[in-house]
Amino acid sequence: MADTPRPLPVVRAMIDALDRDLLQIMAKRMALVAEVAAYKRQHGLKIRDASRERELLRDRHEHAKELGLPSDEIESIFRLLMRSSRDHQAALRAEVPMDAASYTIAIIGGHGRIGRVMARLFGDLGHRLLLVDTDTTLRAEEAAAVADVVVVSVPIDVTDTVIRAVGPHVREDALLMDVTSVKEAPLHAMLEVTSASVVGTHPMFGPSVHTLQGQRVVICRGRGDAWADWVAQSFAARGLVITETNATQHDRAMSVVQVLTHFQTQVQGLTLSRLGLPLAETLPFTSPAYLLELYVAARHFAQDPALYGSIEMRNPRTADVTSAFGQSVHDVADILARGDQAAFSRLFEDVRLFFGDFTAEALEQSSFLIDRIVERA
Amino acid sequence: MADTPRPLPVVRAMIDALDRDLLQIMAKRMALVAEVAAYKRQHGLKIRDASRERELLRDRHEHAKELGLPSDEIESIFRLLMRSSRDHQAALRAEVPMDAASYTIAIIGGHGRIGRVMARLFGDLGHRLLLVDTDTTLRAEEAAAVADVVVVSVPIDVTDTVIRAVGPHVREDALLMDVTSVKEAPLHAMLEVTSASVVGTHPMFGPSVHTLQGQRVVICRGRGDAWADWVAQSFAARGLVITETNATQHDRAMSVVQVLTHFQTQVQGLTLSRLGLPLAETLPFTSPAYLLELYVAARHFAQDPALYGSIEMRNPRTADVTSAFGQSVHDVADILARGDQAAFSRLFEDVRLFFGDFTAEALEQSSFLIDRIVERA
Repeated sequence: MADTPRPLPVVRAMIDALDRDLLQIMAKRMALVAEVAAYKRQHGLKIRDASRERELLRDRHEHAKELGLPSDEIESIFRLLMRSSRDHQAALRAEVPMDAASYTIAIIGGHGRIGRVMARLFGDLGHRLLLVDTDTTLRAEEAAAVADVVVVSVPIDVTDTVIRAVGPHVREDALLMDVTSVKEAPLHAMLEVTSASVVGTHPMFGPSVHTLQGQRVVICRGRGDAWADWVAQSFAARGLVITETNATQHDRAMSVVQVLTHFQTQVQGLTLSRLGLPLAETLPFTSPAYLLELYVAARHFAQDPALYGSIEMRNPRTADVTSAFGQSVHDVADILARGDQAAFSRLFEDVRLFFGDFTAEALEQSSFLIDRIVERA
Repeated sequence: MADTPRPLPVVRAMIDALDRDLLQIMAKRMALVAEVAAYKRQHGLKIRDASRERELLRDRHEHAKELGLPSDEIESIFRLLMRSSRDHQAALRAEVPMDAASYTIAIIGGHGRIGRVMARLFGDLGHRLLLVDTDTTLRAEEAAAVADVVVVSVPIDVTDTVIRAVGPHVREDALLMDVTSVKEAPLHAMLEVTSASVVGTHPMFGPSVHTLQGQRVVICRGRGDAWADWVAQSFAARGLVITETNATQHDRAMSVVQVLTHFQTQVQGLTLSRLGLPLAETLPFTSPAYLLELYVAARHFAQDPALYGSIEMRNPRTADVTSAFGQSVHDVADILARGDQAAFSRLFEDVRLFFGDFTAEALEQSSFLIDRIVERA
């Protein structure tokens, strides 16, 4: 470094020029990714290649170190580039077989939030869409009668009614599928009202996600493996991660994954609103953990109470979950009131055992997320 | 794209070459950042320049769009580069005045987790360190007598004892400061046992953070503005974000920021461990929100129960917080048990009002974080 550094505007202009170069190279990189997509499609290869990803990250990490660059940050940058690259490949249909058939897909509730996601997903894969909603002249029964695939994507409260209305119109060689957050009842209803193929799905993400890459979807087979395989292949081609299970296991896991998670966020938000300390008075003191909880809670309450109400009120295990939660509140509060540090430490030990090996992953991932929170706050 | 794409290994080698170019440019960029640091130090400028950052992000975002690149991902990449750049400037002492005095700083508890962070921070700024801990031959009283600044960084349970032991040895022209998570009691004790300058601080981050850039620290002035200004300047020079307040306001905010946040995580973890569903059975069904809660909980229980026990047991408002939380559990559980969707929706309305304008920020930030979770899962 010179004793008299060049003036700030000069150096900044030089940085701007370098950043243009960075962007140009990224654009060239994206053009090459398009070639990768075409190659993978021609040769029936998957978009995601774990060993290539690992090797790429290891190599960039090492080179960053050699150049004296902060290697963790650089790794994050290449993770971002890789994800954009996968999304680009998916949009170019890299995982869609060259000879894939194009189907007519009726989406009942196609103007709703998940309905629009389904429409985009199947549209991207080159299928013809028939969107039905309360404001379309096309009626559900009409669409169901001509479609190869009928997707029921309506609020959970009317799912049963809609299934029973459209089910009898689905062609025997067609597929009836749903996207409801519970799986036992809708699958049962679908199998009852049609002899067509039946698949239950649960996309575990909301309509506000930026990309479908890596988002999770649960698939429960009802009747007919050929269509179930087609559903799995279609979701995978758009970058979704698939969990196959049966309806009972799905609904039991959701009593924790959805009911407990949402319930505690609701309790947290309600408590905050009742403590009498305005939010603005606490914001100058935010720690990353507090800010994270605030983001999660505020996001939750900005969403549709009808959706969450149904999810929690319809799960048969909700009362068990809320009662276990209440007992835990009582027990932890009691330890704190007694000032019993020994009992408090035992509690930590017990829960640590429950988390087991997952803790290592949690530490790494949460450190990364805290970094991102701090960097953007 | 050609009809017959080039073979995958060829295209991948071309991508590797482009990535080398990216890394080379980033290294050149970092060298320019060093010039920026030198210029800022000579001219007494701050590291952080909000208008330059805004303009840079706007410009890169726009150029990314022009090049057909995914502009949100590209913006994330430049945010990462900017933060690395700020951290590099801080390490080069960009915000430390050219004529800054070098002091002798005694850190009581210097081998502890926060003690080591303080040692690194003051060491980076060019001061001489005297580290005292239970395993050093140097005793706290000896170090306190010769130091310009005495930092008490010991477990909360012994903070009062240590303050009363070293306080009388601190020189009248020196500074006594602490880093405890509560502020009323330690400040009171420090003002009582010494007539030297006194500053209370609370670093709102743990020792595991990757960088100090943007982390928050609370400062409560006790006695002597000159030293308090020096503390604030030193923290700012290392990239910390400073909140100045008084001890009472700090402790009240912490009843929410720390006590409520940690309490609910403890209740969540305990409930999970008691529900009888092994973690592994739920992991194939993780949504981003559930995974986020799991990361936060597993991270929490991997940490020191003595630290959290003290924070929660010593806050005078803990009983109010846990009892409000228990009441909320009861109320939400009751609404769910009754299946009262109208009451559930009113609850959402109430809490939404509490979050107010913050919701917009929360939606943006949480979407970003969910993207990062999905990208790494």
